[in-house]
Amino acid sequence: MVNKKKNGEIKQIAIYGKGGIGKSTTSSNISAALTKLGYKVMQVGCDPKSDSTNTLRDGRYIPTVLDTLRGKGKVTAGEIVFKGFNGVYCVEAGGPAPGVGCAGRGIITAVEQLKQLRVFEDLGIDMVIYDVLGDVVCGGFAVPIREGIARHVFTVTSSDFMAIYAANNLFAGIQKYSSSGGALLGGVIANSINAPYSRSIVNDFAKRTATRVVEYIPRSVSVTQAELQGKTVIEASPDSEQAGVYLKLAEKVANHAESRTPSPLPIEELHQWAAGWAAELLKVQTGQVGISDAI
Amino acid sequence: MVNKKKNGEIKQIAIYGKGGIGKSTTSSNISAALTKLGYKVMQVGCDPKSDSTNTLRDGRYIPTVLDTLRGKGKVTAGEIVFKGFNGVYCVEAGGPAPGVGCAGRGIITAVEQLKQLRVFEDLGIDMVIYDVLGDVVCGGFAVPIREGIARHVFTVTSSDFMAIYAANNLFAGIQKYSSSGGALLGGVIANSINAPYSRSIVNDFAKRTATRVVEYIPRSVSVTQAELQGKTVIEASPDSEQAGVYLKLAEKVANHAESRTPSPLPIEELHQWAAGWAAELLKVQTGQVGISDAI
Repeated sequence: MVNKKKNGEIKQIAIYGKGGIGKSTTSSNISAALTKLGYKVMQVGCDPKSDSTNTLRDGRYIPTVLDTLRGKGKVTAGEIVFKGFNGVYCVEAGGPAPGVGCAGRGIITAVEQLKQLRVFEDLGIDMVIYDVLGDVVCGGFAVPIREGIARHVFTVTSSDFMAIYAANNLFAGIQKYSSSGGALLGGVIANSINAPYSRSIVNDFAKRTATRVVEYIPRSVSVTQAELQGKTVIEASPDSEQAGVYLKLAEKVANHAESRTPSPLPIEELHQWAAGWAAELLKVQTGQVGISDAI
Repeated sequence: MVNKKKNGEIKQIAIYGKGGIGKSTTSSNISAALTKLGYKVMQVGCDPKSDSTNTLRDGRYIPTVLDTLRGKGKVTAGEIVFKGFNGVYCVEAGGPAPGVGCAGRGIITAVEQLKQLRVFEDLGIDMVIYDVLGDVVCGGFAVPIREGIARHVFTVTSSDFMAIYAANNLFAGIQKYSSSGGALLGGVIANSINAPYSRSIVNDFAKRTATRVVEYIPRSVSVTQAELQGKTVIEASPDSEQAGVYLKLAEKVANHAESRTPSPLPIEELHQWAAGWAAELLKVQTGQVGISDAI
């Protein structure tokens, strides 16, 4: 309970990232870590895959807001909010039937329902973590940003170009709504960072887009092991080095106060930037330069 | 020119797959290979990332239909169709501004424009390959299926659960529109198949969903090398083993005649199926069983 600073405000954070990049792993470990720091936390999964909160609930899926609403027309808080590890409240927005309607519909509906039902107030929530699919930043997925529901946005990215492309798109979305009360960018969470060039690539991207890296998370087998058991690292290996990284990150997220408008790279510039890095890495691979020259 | 069987019909094929799974690599190599077999081919990139056709054009991006239309209100065929390797005609649908509107808008618009301008007929196209992002099968991305624009759908998947999840979603979309003139499923293209269990996982998924694997594509460094040069394997290493695999696949796609309605797994069953495989692989990893027992 050492770190909790409660002043009545509900801190709402959105974590965006490309599918498969580790955004749910990161979000769930942050949520679990925040409870260790004394916060009362809710995690809202906003990915049509609806598995954001699984590692907070022993690998089990929970009914989604959209599915429950579809079946009944009306829902109560008890039907869409489920308790997970260390008391984290778990919600899954859900998605549309494949090939029908808007993929962002689940987020819009979940946000509306949580507000209407006054769930945050009734449960005394301190922190809400929205875990949002950032591949396709269509209008629906932008809701937590556009409406200013989340106050700070973080993005999880690896050094992979597609993940960085998704992050740059997210920055464009944030920039677009920044002057009309939209959420601003807290920073970049660099994930799967082991090779020295991974760190350099993400750092360089952050620098060029006027943001900063909040934390570097190494790829770790302890995460794989924990997830195969349906758990976060915070739960499965609380004393591991990896758990320590997530605790440090959670503390930074909790204490984060000043977000900014990022400067996404124009698309042509992003392509040139990526091509430049590809050429550098090719030189390293073919032995033309040493790794230390390239990074 | 040996394989070309022309009967005036324009064969339209859609290739769906999760972002990052190799659908553009596969599509471009199929398109390039089809020209070697004597077909006149157009590839329509339907991913908001708009890089589907890059390896057919020395790594260069082309203006998208949506961007060109946005700037001018009206387009000509010459402004949206670009010639690539061995005469493949390249089109990129494009995507919306991040965070605004529907991510599938580009596909809807591109398909409309190509039809209005009678591009296929005027250019004498035999085969059209739509390369479609399959992560979020929202209404927009389902257009080539729903409207029956494509006649046959193939999906690229690895043995990765998220790729299979996307494929299963696609199957649900196909099933939904199958009775109202929608496109049917040609089969599964298994990508990045090297480990023996990868093949078994994809085979098992295909069997359970009443479909079949059309081809197994190994992960190959020749693809990486070709793409770093902005080329397909068909162009960069036409005599390689990998080029042979794509040629064989292209021939199968060209000659494919009978598609079917797939039977997607209900979501709960898919989760159980994945959990079963995870448990098997864990046993292999921990040495409890040999690899041959598990597959």
